[in-house]
Amino acid sequence: MTTPNAAPPPAAGLRLPPVLLPVADDLARLEACLRDGEGIEFDLLRQLLDWVFSSGGKRIRPAMVFGAARLGRADPEAVTRLAAAIETLHTATLVHDDLVDGAMIRRGMPTLNTRWSAGATVLAGDWLFARAARFAADTGHIRVMQIFARMLGTLTDGELRQMFGRQGIPTREAYAYRIYAKTASLFEAATEAAGVLMGAGPDDIDALAAFGRQAGMAFQIVDDILDFTSTEARLGKPVGSDLRGGTVTLPALIYLDGHPEAAGWWANGSAPDADRVEGVIEAIRGDADVLAAARDAARARLAAALDALRTLPAGAARDDLEHIARFAVERDT
Amino acid sequence: MTTPNAAPPPAAGLRLPPVLLPVADDLARLEACLRDGEGIEFDLLRQLLDWVFSSGGKRIRPAMVFGAARLGRADPEAVTRLAAAIETLHTATLVHDDLVDGAMIRRGMPTLNTRWSAGATVLAGDWLFARAARFAADTGHIRVMQIFARMLGTLTDGELRQMFGRQGIPTREAYAYRIYAKTASLFEAATEAAGVLMGAGPDDIDALAAFGRQAGMAFQIVDDILDFTSTEARLGKPVGSDLRGGTVTLPALIYLDGHPEAAGWWANGSAPDADRVEGVIEAIRGDADVLAAARDAARARLAAALDALRTLPAGAARDDLEHIARFAVERDT
Repeated sequence: MTTPNAAPPPAAGLRLPPVLLPVADDLARLEACLRDGEGIEFDLLRQLLDWVFSSGGKRIRPAMVFGAARLGRADPEAVTRLAAAIETLHTATLVHDDLVDGAMIRRGMPTLNTRWSAGATVLAGDWLFARAARFAADTGHIRVMQIFARMLGTLTDGELRQMFGRQGIPTREAYAYRIYAKTASLFEAATEAAGVLMGAGPDDIDALAAFGRQAGMAFQIVDDILDFTSTEARLGKPVGSDLRGGTVTLPALIYLDGHPEAAGWWANGSAPDADRVEGVIEAIRGDADVLAAARDAARARLAAALDALRTLPAGAARDDLEHIARFAVERDT
Repeated sequence: MTTPNAAPPPAAGLRLPPVLLPVADDLARLEACLRDGEGIEFDLLRQLLDWVFSSGGKRIRPAMVFGAARLGRADPEAVTRLAAAIETLHTATLVHDDLVDGAMIRRGMPTLNTRWSAGATVLAGDWLFARAARFAADTGHIRVMQIFARMLGTLTDGELRQMFGRQGIPTREAYAYRIYAKTASLFEAATEAAGVLMGAGPDDIDALAAFGRQAGMAFQIVDDILDFTSTEARLGKPVGSDLRGGTVTLPALIYLDGHPEAAGWWANGSAPDADRVEGVIEAIRGDADVLAAARDAARARLAAALDALRTLPAGAARDDLEHIARFAVERDT
């Protein structure tokens, strides 16, 4: 069995977009926390942490935690632990997802399951789940832990539904639930729990939860658009992977609404042949109306997020958080 | 993909040994909680709960929770949630273990991974982990959650060590750590967290943790002995599975101490051939001295558990808990 150490990934470091500069110090503390090997006696696990966190990632979820926490006064150590819990949990789900999907590449790097056996990858993901739970418990707030556990339930429920329902074309409601469960539930937990840590009142915590949820929906819709419109170099994986893998996302839903003949290929219960799928991927990439409609859907979610946010006190911290949410939608990578 | 529903397991029901009668009502409430489908909209997940909990199991871990909680006054609802967290987590680890080990049979029933794809089994285990975390958070005590998260870290660390270190003969210390991580850490968390729920003082909580830890060590040593001495019908899997699968447990360690020529087959780094392994399994089964020495090791752990327990106030509840611990060692199944 090859250990991660046998082929160390390049240390990508953090390339912070300007919008994240207000939380740059927080994110630097987070990096140290994510890879902190204290108390880990087993070398392989320290290597695992380096491996799974070295590809960087956008750290958008922790940025939401830190940005939200700046709206009030919270213990910085507890906030860092919350951010670490959110990002570590996100990483744990990626490790298991890549295994389940047989993905070979993520963020331009080989996935863990290309290096480790399936069994070891299962256990590595479990260990990361445990580490995330530990970070969440370290905040010292039972309510944070309850938010975390509820979200974990939603996330895993969504994964199972996607696996058992992958065939065919989902309804818009099923699509919305899928991206809520997969992505927005984590954003929601991030901002809601930040509200708990700052001792916000119930209305403010609800507003922060709604802000995170809607921003997360927007973020995932943009991800689903970029899967068609971006380049393999930027995505770190082939363009059109979602549809090719049988997952029908919003751009495809919009396209298939206007192309019943193509919709029929999916609707009959078996996946269409590869050539047809490639043809639809190309058609969506070239259909400006479809892509614009999908972008509009993301912007509507962003607007809902900002409406919720604007019930909170105005100021520089709120402006910074708004910019982070806008960035999640306007990004091109 | 076959759903569990396609081949429902027999509802085994609970066959309580007399020693568990003092906590029979608690265990009945637990069963309802473990399979409670409230809030689960996805049919498949309700079926999953029925599937994984229908084979019964000994419920020894929840019995330790309930038995310990009777030493003081704790909210029964919180205690039930703690017991459900412990048993659900135990079940989640079995689901992933069976997948990792390629096990086909557990407790005489087909494992989940024989019915579901590997990917679905990974996600089902994750969903059970999430459910366990939810139960633990539902106790409303952050310290319970911290105990739970710490134990989850130990458990997954132990699984990874076992996977990467499976070749060869472990030292006694490595064996002790393995069974602590795999089993005793869960027993320890069960009784320690029960102490937290009853508002026990620090010394009593420490004593309860030590009691659970030592009883868990004894329980696993007995499991390791029964893997050699029991029958396939009682084990629900073939006799000698551990050694055949490359896991060298205490009876084998004791045997190999006295048989250097056989020890050499493992010590050279590659597993011995199947015939030699079968020969050693038969030799251990027939070696009364080896089995007695292993039993003595289990009894020494039990004695340490009872020493810790006896620092707590005497009474019927303590006697009942002592009987549960004795049962964990004296059982023959």
